[in-house]
Amino acid sequence: MALDRKRQVVLESLRRFLRRSAHGHLVNLMAKTRPQDYAPIHEEMNDRERSLLFRVLGDRDPELGADFLSHLPHGVAAALLPRLPIVTAARLLDECDGDDAARLLSDVDDEHSREILAAMHPEDKAVVEQLLIYEDETAGRIMTPSVFALREETTLGEAVAAVQSRGEDVEMAFYLYVIDERDHLVGVLSLRELLTHPPHLRLKDVMNVDLITARADTDQEEVAQLAAKYDLLAVPVTDERGRLVGMVTIDDVVDVLREEATEDIYLVAGTSADERIQPSIWKSARIRSPWLLAAYVGGMLAMLVIRRFDTELETLVGLAALLPVVLGVGGSAGNQSAIVIIRGLATGRVEQGGYLRNFLREMGVATLLGLLYGGLVAVGTYVYGVLSGPTGLVAPSTAAALGRYALPAAAGLIGLALTFSMLVSTTIGALIPLALHRVNIDPAVSTTPFVTTVTDVAGSAIFFLLATLILTT
Amino acid sequence: MALDRKRQVVLESLRRFLRRSAHGHLVNLMAKTRPQDYAPIHEEMNDRERSLLFRVLGDRDPELGADFLSHLPHGVAAALLPRLPIVTAARLLDECDGDDAARLLSDVDDEHSREILAAMHPEDKAVVEQLLIYEDETAGRIMTPSVFALREETTLGEAVAAVQSRGEDVEMAFYLYVIDERDHLVGVLSLRELLTHPPHLRLKDVMNVDLITARADTDQEEVAQLAAKYDLLAVPVTDERGRLVGMVTIDDVVDVLREEATEDIYLVAGTSADERIQPSIWKSARIRSPWLLAAYVGGMLAMLVIRRFDTELETLVGLAALLPVVLGVGGSAGNQSAIVIIRGLATGRVEQGGYLRNFLREMGVATLLGLLYGGLVAVGTYVYGVLSGPTGLVAPSTAAALGRYALPAAAGLIGLALTFSMLVSTTIGALIPLALHRVNIDPAVSTTPFVTTVTDVAGSAIFFLLATLILTT
Repeated sequence: MALDRKRQVVLESLRRFLRRSAHGHLVNLMAKTRPQDYAPIHEEMNDRERSLLFRVLGDRDPELGADFLSHLPHGVAAALLPRLPIVTAARLLDECDGDDAARLLSDVDDEHSREILAAMHPEDKAVVEQLLIYEDETAGRIMTPSVFALREETTLGEAVAAVQSRGEDVEMAFYLYVIDERDHLVGVLSLRELLTHPPHLRLKDVMNVDLITARADTDQEEVAQLAAKYDLLAVPVTDERGRLVGMVTIDDVVDVLREEATEDIYLVAGTSADERIQPSIWKSARIRSPWLLAAYVGGMLAMLVIRRFDTELETLVGLAALLPVVLGVGGSAGNQSAIVIIRGLATGRVEQGGYLRNFLREMGVATLLGLLYGGLVAVGTYVYGVLSGPTGLVAPSTAAALGRYALPAAAGLIGLALTFSMLVSTTIGALIPLALHRVNIDPAVSTTPFVTTVTDVAGSAIFFLLATLILTT
Repeated sequence: MALDRKRQVVLESLRRFLRRSAHGHLVNLMAKTRPQDYAPIHEEMNDRERSLLFRVLGDRDPELGADFLSHLPHGVAAALLPRLPIVTAARLLDECDGDDAARLLSDVDDEHSREILAAMHPEDKAVVEQLLIYEDETAGRIMTPSVFALREETTLGEAVAAVQSRGEDVEMAFYLYVIDERDHLVGVLSLRELLTHPPHLRLKDVMNVDLITARADTDQEEVAQLAAKYDLLAVPVTDERGRLVGMVTIDDVVDVLREEATEDIYLVAGTSADERIQPSIWKSARIRSPWLLAAYVGGMLAMLVIRRFDTELETLVGLAALLPVVLGVGGSAGNQSAIVIIRGLATGRVEQGGYLRNFLREMGVATLLGLLYGGLVAVGTYVYGVLSGPTGLVAPSTAAALGRYALPAAAGLIGLALTFSMLVSTTIGALIPLALHRVNIDPAVSTTPFVTTVTDVAGSAIFFLLATLILTT
């Protein structure tokens, strides 16, 4: 789809100004554009135009350039930075918030990252290096290190004055954190509470001491869940000694929640969240390929299982054509259970209810659904058998041997096979995420392809074992 | 899993106080508990204990009770309200924020809802009724109607005084909205900007006029995406005439984003978001059952397709055992495409890139994956054929007729069938969500079961048609 008209106009003007080297006009136009609205325009430009534009911004108004740079989607900014002169890249990153600069740099290859870092302003460089110590996807990595913190002896009047003089520098200051003489976080006060109490009181008299905090090495998803659960605008982050080192603000929380939801959805579908950065077709195929391996291996193993029952296959004739129903319905039910458990673990609902209780609940649901669909498929098979004659389902010799029991036996076999397949696949689907979560592995990883594989193999085996049992007696 | 020790202690104390009618202690204990931590305790209590507790809170400290009520999960609070005396329920809702009260009431059955509403304080009742006019899942329904708004002629000094005197009443006031004499929203100012400008200036001199707003009838997901995109703490909501009627705050935005993500994940898995309220096993089975119908219908139709090729089935023998691979791998690839498109539509990424471009991209990925897995399955089949002899794959007569071409032909047939199945299933998987989105239906709905159904039927048909073409020449 083309850009909407407004963005098209901006794009054309940007191109005209770039061609004519009308750098003043260029900066003015960018200043009037919202960074969030620029991403689709960026996509339409070619690499030369992009790097030229950011070189002009870096020279003329690095603060504006930094704003645009930090609002580009994951991966897009990382592709741009190595194309800029080192000095320009460093100047732009100097003007980014510390957490944004760290995020951008961690996406760039090591060599460029080192060079850019070396060219940054010592103070900004120190902040970024400090953040890069923390591992990816932790509170430390996404926190902003500039926190508004005052000592507990400060009066409210002094605090208001401090906000007025320093407020502009601090990213999203809604809370005033209170620290003791050893920089330990001891309390918190909202900006509003600061204004609605008498100015002669001291912070320690009015601060809230019941704190929700995160450690710098806490997983970013946990921090986001904390903020979401307790309706916080920022979660203060402390180091291992309890000293305040930063805060994770609500805008980052929102990003993390969206990112993690996307990750879960992609994993559930059998692909990776790396897809969200719109890689090339080749790369997409490479990302998705391993997940299909599960279906491939499952299918090939199922083939070996089926071929083990060569003689049964011959007696079954048409009944074997129902194997796809058994595997399909069973696998779908297993995946439903897997995903209800996975999402329940992500939102904390499963832990609240208890592992065993949730597992038994899923088995109960599977039993009901297994009986329902086992019954449906049995009835369908029976009706088909009545219409086409039992030899449409089993070999003439088997039909003759079983007489009038041939049709009910065939229908019952299919029904039972489906019910058992569903129970096996639900057991796998519910147990795997619970087990992965116990050992601290993201349960969304590869549960559903595994369920498919196991269902294919176990379902085929169940089908033919039951066939041997039922049709040869 | 049992409650953690701390919550267990709280639960036991609550029960002791309830037994002894120690209502003072009860209220004190609740006041020391975070509403967000209470939900698992509530779950452990029986209905009698729950209603007794909230009756005590309603009598002794309705504001505290309202806080706990509005933090209970979806459905749980709705189950509690009808068990309370009407007056108590009304008193608790009077103390809730307007949007919370509206949400709670809309979950209660109509009769109780009317009775409770009638018993509410006229002022609070009017607010709730006003909100209930808006449809479920719109900005109007989730907004808080108490907004901090001042006229544009007000000076900053007067505005600070107004915040100090009225700030406590307004939920999460980060922004000061500026209105003209007809209540139209004309500007916005952050609380911080209010403090960092000279007090003699007027609001209209310093306010930002480039506003991001939502209409009351805007879908809640759109509002949440707006707030997330532009890093806003609140989105002002206007009526059809542009008058400021409320604002959607970031805590509600976070809730909406999580809720919509859960909804998408459940839909993708083939179940409904109603599962998140932990319904009974019966209800869960009822919710999931329709989705399995797709796999059932697909499988039964595939059976009919397979049976149409009776003679081919006999010539194929072992090759038919590979049908599960063809259907499994093809269906998985179709679902990957469907979900990448669905999530891309939810986050706005697809619209940015264009419908056609995204569709072609998916087809490109499917072609690569189809060739890869078509090749893999052909090689697997060939190896199996070499090990077991060609009669392990096709009937002796066919093997004899084709001679040394029998094995390559069988392997090629399987490979081609898989590649074509994947292309069909990806076409369906990518097209359906795009088409649904065009006609304004949530694309997450029932795409994946449909993909499974189509793959089962089309895959079987392709398999046998190719078999007829290749093995009979």
